[in-house]
Amino acid sequence: MGTQKLCVGIAGLGRMGKRHAINFHELTSRANVVAASTPDNNEREWAAENLQGVQIFDDYDEMLEKADLEAVVVASVTAVHAEQALKAIKKGLHVLCEKPLSIDVEVAQSVVSAYEESLKIYPQQKVMCAFSRRFDASYREAHERVEKGEFGSAVFFRSQTADLHDSSGFFVEYAKTSGGIFVDCSIHDIDLMLWFLGENRTIKSLQAVGVCAVHPGLEASNDRDNAIATVEFEGGKIAALYCSRMMAAGQEDTSEIICEKGSVRVNMQVRKNHVEFHDSQGARRELPQHYYERFREAFITEAYEFTACCLDNTPPPISLQSSVKAVCIGQALQRSVISGEKIYFDGRAIKN
Amino acid sequence: MGTQKLCVGIAGLGRMGKRHAINFHELTSRANVVAASTPDNNEREWAAENLQGVQIFDDYDEMLEKADLEAVVVASVTAVHAEQALKAIKKGLHVLCEKPLSIDVEVAQSVVSAYEESLKIYPQQKVMCAFSRRFDASYREAHERVEKGEFGSAVFFRSQTADLHDSSGFFVEYAKTSGGIFVDCSIHDIDLMLWFLGENRTIKSLQAVGVCAVHPGLEASNDRDNAIATVEFEGGKIAALYCSRMMAAGQEDTSEIICEKGSVRVNMQVRKNHVEFHDSQGARRELPQHYYERFREAFITEAYEFTACCLDNTPPPISLQSSVKAVCIGQALQRSVISGEKIYFDGRAIKN
Amino acid sequence: MGTQKLCVGIAGLGRMGKRHAINFHELTSRANVVAASTPDNNEREWAAENLQGVQIFDDYDEMLEKADLEAVVVASVTAVHAEQALKAIKKGLHVLCEKPLSIDVEVAQSVVSAYEESLKIYPQQKVMCAFSRRFDASYREAHERVEKGEFGSAVFFRSQTADLHDSSGFFVEYAKTSGGIFVDCSIHDIDLMLWFLGENRTIKSLQAVGVCAVHPGLEASNDRDNAIATVEFEGGKIAALYCSRMMAAGQEDTSEIICEKGSVRVNMQVRKNHVEFHDSQGARRELPQHYYERFREAFITEAYEFTACCLDNTPPPISLQSSVKAVCIGQALQRSVISGEKIYFDGRAIKN
Amino acid sequence: MGTQKLCVGIAGLGRMGKRHAINFHELTSRANVVAASTPDNNEREWAAENLQGVQIFDDYDEMLEKADLEAVVVASVTAVHAEQALKAIKKGLHVLCEKPLSIDVEVAQSVVSAYEESLKIYPQQKVMCAFSRRFDASYREAHERVEKGEFGSAVFFRSQTADLHDSSGFFVEYAKTSGGIFVDCSIHDIDLMLWFLGENRTIKSLQAVGVCAVHPGLEASNDRDNAIATVEFEGGKIAALYCSRMMAAGQEDTSEIICEKGSVRVNMQVRKNHVEFHDSQGARRELPQHYYERFREAFITEAYEFTACCLDNTPPPISLQSSVKAVCIGQALQRSVISGEKIYFDGRAIKN
Repeated sequence: MGTQKLCVGIAGLGRMGKRHAINFHELTSRANVVAASTPDNNEREWAAENLQGVQIFDDYDEMLEKADLEAVVVASVTAVHAEQALKAIKKGLHVLCEKPLSIDVEVAQSVVSAYEESLKIYPQQKVMCAFSRRFDASYREAHERVEKGEFGSAVFFRSQTADLHDSSGFFVEYAKTSGGIFVDCSIHDIDLMLWFLGENRTIKSLQAVGVCAVHPGLEASNDRDNAIATVEFEGGKIAALYCSRMMAAGQEDTSEIICEKGSVRVNMQVRKNHVEFHDSQGARRELPQHYYERFREAFITEAYEFTACCLDNTPPPISLQSSVKAVCIGQALQRSVISGEKIYFDGRAIKN
Repeated sequence: MGTQKLCVGIAGLGRMGKRHAINFHELTSRANVVAASTPDNNEREWAAENLQGVQIFDDYDEMLEKADLEAVVVASVTAVHAEQALKAIKKGLHVLCEKPLSIDVEVAQSVVSAYEESLKIYPQQKVMCAFSRRFDASYREAHERVEKGEFGSAVFFRSQTADLHDSSGFFVEYAKTSGGIFVDCSIHDIDLMLWFLGENRTIKSLQAVGVCAVHPGLEASNDRDNAIATVEFEGGKIAALYCSRMMAAGQEDTSEIICEKGSVRVNMQVRKNHVEFHDSQGARRELPQHYYERFREAFITEAYEFTACCLDNTPPPISLQSSVKAVCIGQALQRSVISGEKIYFDGRAIKN
Repeated sequence: MGTQKLCVGIAGLGRMGKRHAINFHELTSRANVVAASTPDNNEREWAAENLQGVQIFDDYDEMLEKADLEAVVVASVTAVHAEQALKAIKKGLHVLCEKPLSIDVEVAQSVVSAYEESLKIYPQQKVMCAFSRRFDASYREAHERVEKGEFGSAVFFRSQTADLHDSSGFFVEYAKTSGGIFVDCSIHDIDLMLWFLGENRTIKSLQAVGVCAVHPGLEASNDRDNAIATVEFEGGKIAALYCSRMMAAGQEDTSEIICEKGSVRVNMQVRKNHVEFHDSQGARRELPQHYYERFREAFITEAYEFTACCLDNTPPPISLQSSVKAVCIGQALQRSVISGEKIYFDGRAIKN
Repeated sequence: MGTQKLCVGIAGLGRMGKRHAINFHELTSRANVVAASTPDNNEREWAAENLQGVQIFDDYDEMLEKADLEAVVVASVTAVHAEQALKAIKKGLHVLCEKPLSIDVEVAQSVVSAYEESLKIYPQQKVMCAFSRRFDASYREAHERVEKGEFGSAVFFRSQTADLHDSSGFFVEYAKTSGGIFVDCSIHDIDLMLWFLGENRTIKSLQAVGVCAVHPGLEASNDRDNAIATVEFEGGKIAALYCSRMMAAGQEDTSEIICEKGSVRVNMQVRKNHVEFHDSQGARRELPQHYYERFREAFITEAYEFTACCLDNTPPPISLQSSVKAVCIGQALQRSVISGEKIYFDGRAIKN
């Protein structure tokens, strides 16, 4: 392992951008955050206080031009993920791009194409979509044990992303640009589904049904606040997904992989920590209140491993093509939940 | 409460028949088992030893004719459930019929019609299908708390019936007459779904996908060993079902009712008893190995409450019509899992 | 198995007496409750309504004299346990006596002596103290697995009986005659300790400390509402006990047997049933509110097995001598918790 | 918060020293590890590879003399903890000293005295003993909730430190200098006991019993491999401790604080991560295999907070005097477990 540190720029300092900045800046010993960009005044003020020694830009392009970067973390709003990623790719920079690459499959695919072209010039370049759950110690152990064949072949994958209820109207506003609950929320479960059942496995059919139970305003954006989907793969594998914006107790992101000779459950007894209270209400544990509370460690590992693959020229932990496939499936499910139609692929479309 | 005891006849002394016989004979203080019938020699021998003072018949019709019965428990093979129930109904006897009434909706509906006719003559007659899970203390508490509105309106119902893997070939043989995994296995989940989401609620659509993962022989009977379904109801409610014949650890029958302000989970930490082992494998609890190991108490309660409704002339705990609706849904799911088609109801068909 | 039923009389129809009466009367197919006695008017009224066909006496001696009994269940107040047991023993009746035999070791021992004498005349007579937890399916499985040596030799036994807080003053009143928290409450844990570590194992030392945290009135009766004890056995085995009258969530009776190669935990995730609630408080399960709610099944099994040992002339499931030893240990702990002294046995006293 | 970083030297690079070095070097953004010392060649080689830019010494005194230090982390063998801490204190350096300060109470107290003297010269100096469990998020939440009085006054504190069985003979060798299981292993539980029940609370009595169940060789060092203790405090509070070197499944460090109106349980469902396996053995989770696997995060927090108190001149998170009290209690328990005597304090000795 060399002594060189990876020079990183952070694009966007919103909720996730701040976290990436801190993680790369303070907790990733092999990386140096040298620059950050955001059009937002408050975010730049935050950076001035919290990212000492880091050059702050109000413009992404200017950062790319002036800062001495080897890698960029794209943590801006979803709408510019692809555009910013493409610009960095063209400059030969390593890119860690927040999920989803885009809510549009073609745009997402264009990032892959650009990366493939770029690799001819910069063969050591790494571009990766930030599917944080793949870096969670529990999901990793589950995947490793299933891959080893400890429980036989995987047959049924069940997963959910279920957010704490937010009565502020945030989700309704957010739905206008999020691409829909299957693209925004279930994208993690879709990514895990591909990881556990096979990224190259052909999909035969999928369908979804959903409702607006607590956020009727979502209808206007063709979105739902609770939805369930089934996906049927070639080779005798099936999956069921649930997504929700209505949880009362906290973030409940759970997965189950049922194999021929056993099953593996991740997060099914979701808990904030190791404390249990016994009082007049019974025995009680608390839950994480949001995604980051549960998966903070995974983000730190992600920062560490992305840095390592750049510095050591090893393959990125997640294939970029599979991230496009995840968007493609998310979009198809979103179409299905709105149209009510089951979608058959006949070996076309969502294949590789 | 009177001192009179209900005189009961048991039809069929197979696995379930034996259990019903013992439960009514020994553990239901207000009932007397006075007769039992079975065409099987071994079963009659068992009865001679275990059902003291009970008249044993090799023919159901003869039992109906000669024994002094007030009620019949139909626990024969599924194929004769409806026929035996109909005969008892016509004689004005109370009937507790094992599920399903029939694997054919029309036949099942004919039992309801016969009962409705018979009520004109025997207004105190009780006929009920034995959906044992409704008598389980945990399911009951869940239902009561949801009904009270403690967690707001129910939005999503998820449930599964998952049997221990049996490598003997039993399931393949059994599938020839079982009506399929959704009629045989998921019928409990369907019944619970109706109980929790509303027995009169109209279904908009349903669909299922499934595989033969460990019992390829099921293909020949148009059956599957793992399958998942989604059901969409009018009024903003959705459901997901999973059924399996492949569990490694034991019987895993779990349900989850996700409401607007909270959720209720039944059996999600399924366990045989209150013991946990810590050894070199980690911390471990064992699971019930079959349905009866988990639900024995529910069957005893069922016997007790069926007896009580007969003696006290109170309404049966489960409406017979809803049991037909369960068969109807099970059949539709079975059609869908085979054809691959999503089925839309447009307000027709599965309504009442 | 013969067809004969055991003719049982119930002495005392208080809280526990009623339960024994119902269990023997309605749920024990091989027993007939033919008589019951209680000096209490209300209890006799209850019996008239609930124990049909049973002869009711207001005097125990009269019941012994006039009723046609084979066995007696002594469920009266603790003060008369021994006296009533002795009378029944002298008549050659089988006796199931509620715990403790007596709060006085000599009195308790006198019952054993009387039984030993009586056996010379009635060699098939059964006398047993009702330690219900030994009949609980979970404790039994734990014991069986430990006995089999599955986890190596048992080293440390930890157990507690912890009652729901009762603000009515009941415990203070009750303490005047209960013999103290170690004789009344921990007696179950002491019995289990002997069962798991060896009924004949010599005790080297024991000591206890305790407090009156929520029931200061207990001081006057030389009692405590929370206390902890350690017991040291010959042969390298130790035990720790906790007893409490102050639990907020419910009855928390737990045990742990730590062996050389593993440990067995009983009831450590104590729960009322299989339901879990998720709401704004987190994820929550409820606890049994009292001893009987958790151990009802064990009492039914106890009734069944006591009946069986009487009818089939098999050894009683629990040795009467060990029940005296339990009282002896309980008394010593109660002395220690009050005096503050550690008690050493030097191979004397608590031996057999 | 200033931009200045704390210059830290690490004394000792054994198992714990390596961890402290990495945590301060890579994961504590406000600290710089500038030097490390160890007499061990292999450890210095490890440092050369893993602590880039850090000056490595083979002699502690030399490090103190030559390196430009503001703080020292003492992670050497227990025997030199006090000596090394004293030297650093005299130089006015901040000190984070691994537990225990010493296995001898007088020596431990001499560190406190030296620190008190030194404060007159260096009023901003911080000296703290590294009781890592106080930095664990779960223990912290438990403490905060109890301190707030959410469950009323604490009455009973129960805690254990139980190590995975090690058949290599390590514990026997280690016992020769460890001070005994109560000083080495239970010292954490004792520290937590003081934290939860009151650091200034007077102890009335304590006693312990123990056995050599799997490591008979411990007898020779007057040590035990399983032991239980009770401690009685003034003011109506009691505690029970268990320590073990014999766990089959992993590290089982659990605590329970039972208060008047509720209880808080930490780690009682000890688990390595969020994964559960269901297979033919039942439902199973794995346990952490050693202390650091469970408490790594706490060590990182400890490094962060020790650094912060030095840089920001805030009080150290743990009082040094309480760490001496912990040693004092540990020693008394060790005496008791060997002598078999209960120790009474009559308001003397273990008071402050």
